Amino acid sequence: MHGVREEVAMLAAVTLFGVLLQAYFSWQVITARRRFRVAPPATTGPPEFERVFRAQANCTEYFPLFLAVLWVAGIFFHQGVAAACGLLYLGARYRYFHGYAVSAQGRLGPLYFGARVLWLLVALSALGLAFHFLPASLKTPLLRRLQWLVVMG
Amino acid sequence: MHGVREEVAMLAAVTLFGVLLQAYFSWQVITARRRFRVAPPATTGPPEFERVFRAQANCTEYFPLFLAVLWVAGIFFHQGVAAACGLLYLGARYRYFHGYAVSAQGRLGPLYFGARVLWLLVALSALGLAFHFLPASLKTPLLRRLQWLVVMG
Amino acid sequence: MHGVREEVAMLAAVTLFGVLLQAYFSWQVITARRRFRVAPPATTGPPEFERVFRAQANCTEYFPLFLAVLWVAGIFFHQGVAAACGLLYLGARYRYFHGYAVSAQGRLGPLYFGARVLWLLVALSALGLAFHFLPASLKTPLLRRLQWLVVMG
Repeated sequence: MHGVREEVAMLAAVTLFGVLLQAYFSWQVITARRRFRVAPPATTGPPEFERVFRAQANCTEYFPLFLAVLWVAGIFFHQGVAAACGLLYLGARYRYFHGYAVSAQGRLGPLYFGARVLWLLVALSALGLAFHFLPASLKTPLLRRLQWLVVMG
Repeated sequence: MHGVREEVAMLAAVTLFGVLLQAYFSWQVITARRRFRVAPPATTGPPEFERVFRAQANCTEYFPLFLAVLWVAGIFFHQGVAAACGLLYLGARYRYFHGYAVSAQGRLGPLYFGARVLWLLVALSALGLAFHFLPASLKTPLLRRLQWLVVMG
Repeated sequence: MHGVREEVAMLAAVTLFGVLLQAYFSWQVITARRRFRVAPPATTGPPEFERVFRAQANCTEYFPLFLAVLWVAGIFFHQGVAAACGLLYLGARYRYFHGYAVSAQGRLGPLYFGARVLWLLVALSALGLAFHFLPASLKTPLLRRLQWLVVMG
């Protein structure tokens, strides 16, 4: 287990950081409920409230997808690269949330950036898994060629 | 870690496939927002739009539950069986989404089928965990009886 | 893999229990849809229905966050402690759901208790990860001091 812990510790740290960010978004919704007087279970109200509510709902919706590709990319491609992408994604979500709170237009820039980072994690996951499922007879020459590229490039 | 990677690679592949399916559903909601002119943060509009929106919301809601039982069944019961159930579930979700987009009635068939596959994964998880927690003195005779059933059956 | 299975079996069992609880909440929404005649895709109706609907939505929203900190705390701090917190959290969610179904006020007590347990899991995760990332030269004296406190305390 010690070796496994070593190979997922950075992923776990980014996961914990993501949970804290989601807690912060939830707190913003509670604050907005008070400010705009929208008592639960209502989820509709002034547009200012609805934007904050939808921003949190959207971040929440993507959180499991994000964790899934963070961990698959981290375990099958490279832990450090996946964790770095994870931090970029969470930063984009923070800017998305505050952009959306100001205006529906303001969410778009960080939304697109975050989506690109998520697609990168998808691609790294797919690459890592594809390499894992390659027969060993193909893996060795491929690794040798990659090493050669890294040394020569 | 190599051994662990070996024992979860199929689960990771099904997870990645599930993420791609959820991305496809999100894309369908964006398309429906354009077609039926429902700009964010609104989530209500013509029934055609609301059905697509709810279809995606329902799939998203079940995704973490699905991943949880996929991995628990895959790690504690059998990786290949869990991954096969996972593919069946994702196929049912695809048919559910497009059925719901056509009519509320059209979602029911694949919804029930998908629910049955999910219950199967729950049952396999429970079986795998129950066997794991059995004392070793009971495990050995049970395994021997099972082998006997497989050979003779 | 056997050693890894040993170190996550209790986390997997609590996860499975959580999935069953979420399935129960989904079932309550289906029942409420029938009783208050709110056919999908509608999500609004009498306050009694909306409270049940929001109760389930809120539990669903927090489920991935809960699983994330349950597993990080269980892998990096202590499996048994994390699993016990997990059971407390799920019990709080059960009381939250039924409290909310009765009145918006009735959700608050178990909501606050559940939030406190979730923060405890966050703190245990952070502690476990912080200890993991400590350089070995600091870990050994810290562990010795902790042992001393446990023996003497």
